[in-house]
Amino acid sequence: MTSETLGHIAAFLTTFSFVPQAYITLKTQNTAGISLTMYIIFFLGVLSWLIYGIQIENSPIIFANSITIVLAALILFVKIKNTLKKT
Amino acid sequence: MTSETLGHIAAFLTTFSFVPQAYITLKTQNTAGISLTMYIIFFLGVLSWLIYGIQIENSPIIFANSITIVLAALILFVKIKNTLKKT
Repeated sequence: MTSETLGHIAAFLTTFSFVPQAYITLKTQNTAGISLTMYIIFFLGVLSWLIYGIQIENSPIIFANSITIVLAALILFVKIKNTLKKT
Repeated sequence: MTSETLGHIAAFLTTFSFVPQAYITLKTQNTAGISLTMYIIFFLGVLSWLIYGIQIENSPIIFANSITIVLAALILFVKIKNTLKKT
């Protein structure tokens, strides 16, 4: 397996790993065990990856992070909504 | 800001975003809202990134993913432990 293929597999796995989390969070609305701080920092990180990918015109980085940012935003939205409900 | 700096910031943010999640999971042992499927796929993804980084001898990728893999493993361990307790 070439390293480039491995890189694409890695990008695919870490991107699509957020699909089951977004699905569970949207379905159960249960964000008890989820860290708000993590998803804020993670969202900013993925946003940085996206801008970085655009700057260096790297389509895999743009593709992977444009999906991850939507998934992370969904999870973050539900977490913030639940957090505000508690206050 | 150079794109390389942005890339390092992005790697730093997405890596260290898992610190608060690992902290909350270890402290509360509450993994109710956490997706087991996500962390299994994510763990495999980070492992792939690590092997990829070693293959192309890219230290930032090796550095970031060797930290993330430890954090992801901690969260995954607690999630599996809780899941087995329920069965």
